[in-house]
Amino acid sequence: MVEAAMECFHERGFNGTGIQDIARTAGVPKGSVYNHFDSKEALAAEVMDRYAVSRKMEMLRDETLAPVPRIRAHFEYLAADLERFSFERGCMFGNFGMELSNQSAMIRGKVDTGLRLWTSAVTEVLEEARAEGALATALTPDQLGRFLVNAWGGAVLRAKVAGSRAPVDGFFEVFDSLVA
Amino acid sequence: MVEAAMECFHERGFNGTGIQDIARTAGVPKGSVYNHFDSKEALAAEVMDRYAVSRKMEMLRDETLAPVPRIRAHFEYLAADLERFSFERGCMFGNFGMELSNQSAMIRGKVDTGLRLWTSAVTEVLEEARAEGALATALTPDQLGRFLVNAWGGAVLRAKVAGSRAPVDGFFEVFDSLVA
Repeated sequence: MVEAAMECFHERGFNGTGIQDIARTAGVPKGSVYNHFDSKEALAAEVMDRYAVSRKMEMLRDETLAPVPRIRAHFEYLAADLERFSFERGCMFGNFGMELSNQSAMIRGKVDTGLRLWTSAVTEVLEEARAEGALATALTPDQLGRFLVNAWGGAVLRAKVAGSRAPVDGFFEVFDSLVA
Repeated sequence: MVEAAMECFHERGFNGTGIQDIARTAGVPKGSVYNHFDSKEALAAEVMDRYAVSRKMEMLRDETLAPVPRIRAHFEYLAADLERFSFERGCMFGNFGMELSNQSAMIRGKVDTGLRLWTSAVTEVLEEARAEGALATALTPDQLGRFLVNAWGGAVLRAKVAGSRAPVDGFFEVFDSLVA
């Protein structure tokens, strides 16, 4: 049921999805959704937890790769995931962050926490890179980590609007210029 | 009525806003909204046109400022506009792009066109900067223009989720490092 909800929310947004849509996608009666979740918001919170796990933050701690290629591999993983849906669904953090920040303190908190954890993980790898002398830019790992995560979010949004991979490719071009 | 709709859509999103909300904000009866607009989507399209004008793209053609300070002044204008609502409303291009790209081809087209025009305008000023030798980075004006506009969108999203100016400040730090 959480999978079905994720699919609906991801494609149509929170306010664009009815409990009936989720029940239909899951192949269960509408009432059984409410047997498991108090509200659509509670279900969305569960979806966010599951989505966060699917982002594979642990890739950023894979020390078999050097720091910069490791960060790049993580963004490439995310890009491949977006490409499954022709970049048309975007990222759930961005989608829910945009749509629900003013509507649900719970969802906003989950998005904020997810983005903070991700930013920290990226920044730590950038600190490794700097320690190894593998970071050319004068920006600090902290400045760069925050910027990369936010710039990624913007590229994903643009890819969604354009229905094209080009903005994500543009992100990698600047990544290679800034980080490598 | 378009102003009232913009306020509602900006704060609560498209799907989170009812025609009744717009009528109440405008201080008119619900029926009179439908007298002027065939659908909520048609009203949203009108809102997007008005919002695009309020972005003051013409600032990018103000030749009394040198190219790099001119681009910075434009982003500062946008930041000040976001700050009026404590960064909590975000940018309508981003909001509608996220929420409606899969729901309305008309709105998606307006967002896509708006972002393309803005990107072109920024890129043209970056080309001026390059011609004057005022652009340090090895990136092309085209790469940089596309990246800056997308990174801005991501920073605005993050500011909305965090309810804080910090991501926008981070954008300016990297702007100064990349562009100046």
